[in-house]
Amino acid sequence: MSLEILSRVRCFGGEQRRYQHHSHRLSCDMRVSVFLPPQALAADESVRLPVLYWLSGLTCTDENFVQKAGAQRIAAELGLIVVAPDTSPRGEGVARAAEGEWDLGLGAGFYVNATEAPWSVHYRMYDYILEELPALVEATLPIDGQRRAISGHSVGGHGALVLALRNPQRFRSVSAFAPIVAPSTCPWGNKAFTAYLGENREAWAQYDASLLLARHGCPLPLLLDQGDADAFLAVQLQPERLLEAAGQVGVTVDYRRREGYDHSYFYIASFIEEHLRFHAQHLAIQP
Amino acid sequence: MSLEILSRVRCFGGEQRRYQHHSHRLSCDMRVSVFLPPQALAADESVRLPVLYWLSGLTCTDENFVQKAGAQRIAAELGLIVVAPDTSPRGEGVARAAEGEWDLGLGAGFYVNATEAPWSVHYRMYDYILEELPALVEATLPIDGQRRAISGHSVGGHGALVLALRNPQRFRSVSAFAPIVAPSTCPWGNKAFTAYLGENREAWAQYDASLLLARHGCPLPLLLDQGDADAFLAVQLQPERLLEAAGQVGVTVDYRRREGYDHSYFYIASFIEEHLRFHAQHLAIQP
Repeated sequence: MSLEILSRVRCFGGEQRRYQHHSHRLSCDMRVSVFLPPQALAADESVRLPVLYWLSGLTCTDENFVQKAGAQRIAAELGLIVVAPDTSPRGEGVARAAEGEWDLGLGAGFYVNATEAPWSVHYRMYDYILEELPALVEATLPIDGQRRAISGHSVGGHGALVLALRNPQRFRSVSAFAPIVAPSTCPWGNKAFTAYLGENREAWAQYDASLLLARHGCPLPLLLDQGDADAFLAVQLQPERLLEAAGQVGVTVDYRRREGYDHSYFYIASFIEEHLRFHAQHLAIQP
Repeated sequence: MSLEILSRVRCFGGEQRRYQHHSHRLSCDMRVSVFLPPQALAADESVRLPVLYWLSGLTCTDENFVQKAGAQRIAAELGLIVVAPDTSPRGEGVARAAEGEWDLGLGAGFYVNATEAPWSVHYRMYDYILEELPALVEATLPIDGQRRAISGHSVGGHGALVLALRNPQRFRSVSAFAPIVAPSTCPWGNKAFTAYLGENREAWAQYDASLLLARHGCPLPLLLDQGDADAFLAVQLQPERLLEAAGQVGVTVDYRRREGYDHSYFYIASFIEEHLRFHAQHLAIQP
């Protein structure tokens, strides 16, 4: 199991790279994009840098964030490695939804370990992001495995929150742009969880950030970002559910509501700098 | 003739918009992307802001630069309107090259007025960019028509240079990323000029930045940007031809050669801030 490099392009003094590797968890080949800041290209092999794992949303691959968010500029300044995986297993033999369905199957793994056929063969994105991918990139690249942060957008924001809330010892901080915070009670989540997890509501609860936070609290810093002109706000995203749960258990959420912003990468690009600086603070990066 | 709005998205406090309009010059409907900085959204109708026209390269539409370059952040800070047109006429009845040819026809108008059949019916991008598009957007949006700059990438860099060198009174400054500076003597230019302009070499010379500069000099500030790991550098781009012409006629070119950078939008994103600040200086924008 190793990273095979597909491309490397100079960007803000660092390198935007794309790798391919075989995933045992997902039983398929996966692609992952990695930004290495200039500090990671230094000759000194003792350098170990903090890392941000970025999880993208529905229909995305590992490339959308890398091409559209403009995160490399700040990551280069901060000396932060950014790892952007794909959003589902891919390839021949991987189950897919019906033609035209973009909220299930390819590009829509929802960061869960599926238990139901036909999805359970490949769709184990929770384990992949939590264990297999970090083990691989942290063994290969100059990453300080003690300084991880996680963030994401939409379904990827859901993934980031769930991974951090269930494994707070693994991450220093978590942030999310327009995340699905209560998948058990929204149409996207209902559809995906029914397909991937069946009717077992306790299994659903293990992937529901609002329920997890209400049960276990949140010992790590949490930044929640939401545009108030987001077309998915009321029905799919429901940030108030996470905020209510946080209020009930006395957890402070750094909630930033953005007037007039929608669900697009133009929104993410506008505020990614704030998120990276938030994580930098908790990753002990000197300003 | 008017601008019909297709979309408007909040971005860095301003708005990224996309318009459609009928072009009389091109005899087809065209799309154009426009970034309005926060200053343009102010209620004060007397506000008139400087404008940058951005010309994209082969295979691009009006959207690539908007989604990938990250220019909105600086444009918002500077109060600069950015107009990004499409790269060729489009639509039913518009001549196109053979399947798989991406360096002629759709997405490859080369910013010339074609004189040869079948291209001459629609392919009049030079006139469109010089006259029709500015007249339209400057009548509709809060643009100060006395403060125009122009820039572009690859074939779009060629377009920016040719438009500025032939019409220095129209622009305050010009810059180009990895432009084709000598289309008469490179394969892309040879192919396109033969198709669009026929065998008349004097017609070619009117669209060749190095020849234009050698003949007429360059009375406006010119920034030339080039990555030295650009795969197209030696055969297609040949920046030394423009620099030689400039040396012969005593014109100063602000030449910035970037070590290790290629031809991609990762390269553009890395240096777009420098270009916008260069133009801001000549557009009399206060820092």
